[in-house]
Formats: sequence, C-alpha cells, structure tokens
Amino acid sequence: MDKNVLEPLVRELKKLPGVGAKSAERMVYEMLNMTPEEREILASNVLDLEKIKHCRTCNNLTLVDICEICSDKNRDNVILCVTDDVRNINLFEANKLFPGKYFVLNKLISPMLGVDPDDLNLSQLKDMVKQNKVEEIVIALKPSIEGEATALYIAKIFDGQVKVSKMARGIPLGTEMEYLDSLTLSQALSDRKVIN
Amino acid sequence: MDKNVLEPLVRELKKLPGVGAKSAERMVYEMLNMTPEEREILASNVLDLEKIKHCRTCNNLTLVDICEICSDKNRDNVILCVTDDVRNINLFEANKLFPGKYFVLNKLISPMLGVDPDDLNLSQLKDMVKQNKVEEIVIALKPSIEGEATALYIAKIFDGQVKVSKMARGIPLGTEMEYLDSLTLSQALSDRKVIN
Repeated sequence: MDKNVLEPLVRELKKLPGVGAKSAERMVYEMLNMTPEEREILASNVLDLEKIKHCRTCNNLTLVDICEICSDKNRDNVILCVTDDVRNINLFEANKLFPGKYFVLNKLISPMLGVDPDDLNLSQLKDMVKQNKVEEIVIALKPSIEGEATALYIAKIFDGQVKVSKMARGIPLGTEMEYLDSLTLSQALSDRKVIN
Repeated sequence: MDKNVLEPLVRELKKLPGVGAKSAERMVYEMLNMTPEEREILASNVLDLEKIKHCRTCNNLTLVDICEICSDKNRDNVILCVTDDVRNINLFEANKLFPGKYFVLNKLISPMLGVDPDDLNLSQLKDMVKQNKVEEIVIALKPSIEGEATALYIAKIFDGQVKVSKMARGIPLGTEMEYLDSLTLSQALSDRKVIN
C-alpha cells in the first residue's frame, strides 16, 4: 500500500495496552472491511468516553453524578469495600461477590514514587464512612508493598471506630504451588483453616 | 462501574482480530486515560479509513487514483509481483525486496468456496501486463491449495507470452525442521542448491 495510508491509525492503536505493530495493523485491516456505519459507531463510542465521569460519592465510573451502586437502596450500607482499581468493582459485581458499597482510592501510598497519605482521597473516604454509618471496611487493594502499606494506614485511621479487614492471602485454585512466591505460601500456611 | 458505561466500546473493539473481552476492556481503560484530543485523533483516524481506495491499476491501497508504486517512474516495469494480500506489498517494500511493480488479485480460485477463474480480476491483470510490457510475473500467493491452483492458472494464461515464476518453497531460517510439513520438506529437498 502507499506509505502512510494506514500509518496514522496504526500509530494511535499502538498506544493501547497489548497492541504491537502487527496487531495494530491487523486491526486496521479489519476496520477497512467494516462498513462506514460500523466505523462511525466505533469512532463515536471512542468520543463518548468523554461523557464518563467519577461518582461524587465513591469515584466509581458513571454517566451520572451518583453511580448506580451508590444510589441502590437495596445494597448494604454498613459494609464498604475499598479498592484502588475501578475494575475490581466490575469483577466483584459480575460474580455478585459483595453485597455492600464500594470506594475507589485514587492512589496507593508509595514512598518510592513520592506518594504520601496526604495525596490520597482519604477525607472523601471518611465522609462516605460517616454518611453510610459503615461498620466494616473490606480492603481489596493491589497485593503489593504499596497496597499493604495503604491497608495498614487505613486500618490505623479507623482504629477503634470501624472494623477494617482485608481479603485473605492464600493459594488460588488451579495454581502450581511451585510458582507461588514464598510470602503467599507463608501466609497461606499461617492462615490455615481447620476443616474437620 | 455502572453497567454498560464502557460496554458499547468494548463490544465494538471485540470485533477486531485478536481482541477478546479482557483486552478490549484494558484498551477502553487506556482510552479513558487519554486526553479528549487524543481520543479525537483516534476517532478521526478511524473515520478517515473511508478515504482509502484501491489503485485503479494494481488494486493496492491508496488515497489517490493511482498508487505511489504504480506512478513511480524509477521502478522496474517489466517485472510484476502478483499477490493476493495487499499486506505482502508492505512486507516486500519495508525490506526493499522487490524492484518491480505489484498486482493484487481479488481472490484465489477455490472450488470448495465456489470461486472459479471468472471471479478473479484477471482481465485487469492482463491489461497491466500488456500496458507495462511485463516480461516476468512473480507469483507470491498464499501457500495453500488455492494459492497453488491460482498460480498454475495464471502460468497457463501467460504461457508462451510472459515468464511466470513463483517464490521458492523451502525451510525458513530459525525453524525446527520437525515442525515443518512434509510437502515443504519434500520441496526443500527436491529444490536443493549446490553450494560448492
């Protein structure tokens, strides 16, 4: 083909995660085979992302001011899951794992990256905890040093007022034990459950 | 996130080759992090595909009537590469492998799919061969039964008028021989080259 005919779109697609030169090119060829109407739908869906904002209460992604979960009267107000990734909400909701509400932290504490507790949206979290009369905060943060540090910090903030728990560490189903890190193994061992 | 906030775009992206639900979702999150300007560039590049057409001479992709390669006075007119995939032109050009011009076949002969020689754009090929006073046609079609059948058919059409050659079959560099099919092995053996 003529040089640069497809290049502009290939270049943009390559910015997406997991998309290299080859796969970007394959996508563009597929798009060439789409009808103009299909391409218009795709392009307008990209532009529509503009309309997505953060829930004023919990920071979840939403098209309205207060997200569906926060405005759902049937959900349990007293248990709140704190996560650092809005995608976790999807994961939990898709599998109906959690009856309560969610709060999305904007950051994790990281001395390495110069993120200290003041940079986190913790006052918004405190507001939500107060507003909803939360009795238990379930921490579901990234399993990393930063996630652990942030979990401890949140536990300290609410110490004596609200119970703070975190998701269990352990051995996931279907793994080869030999590939697990020693910290997970040691936690799985010390948190062992009696089954008889 | 609220149900269906990202769903429309995820659904469109999943139509692309190699993009499943998970990767479509990751792409959408990445797009959410783009600036509105970046999203506009992406969307308008998708819409710009509309402007791409086929070269009137050789069917290559182009923004103008006659593609850059066909209008290049410095290229060798007498040798013509016939391919069934416009991407091969890119491959050859990127590596400067071929000095001549190209012709893109619209289809391969396939009794299975009900494609017979009349369905192919062979009269356009004949025009180009005549126009350019082509002396050799190099066939670079898909290495399949359909590709082989089409190559033989083209060889027959030009028999006695134009030399028709096809790319060598053989063992690619860096392969494990044990994974090659027997036909390739047998061709590599019968086409063996004396090297001393």
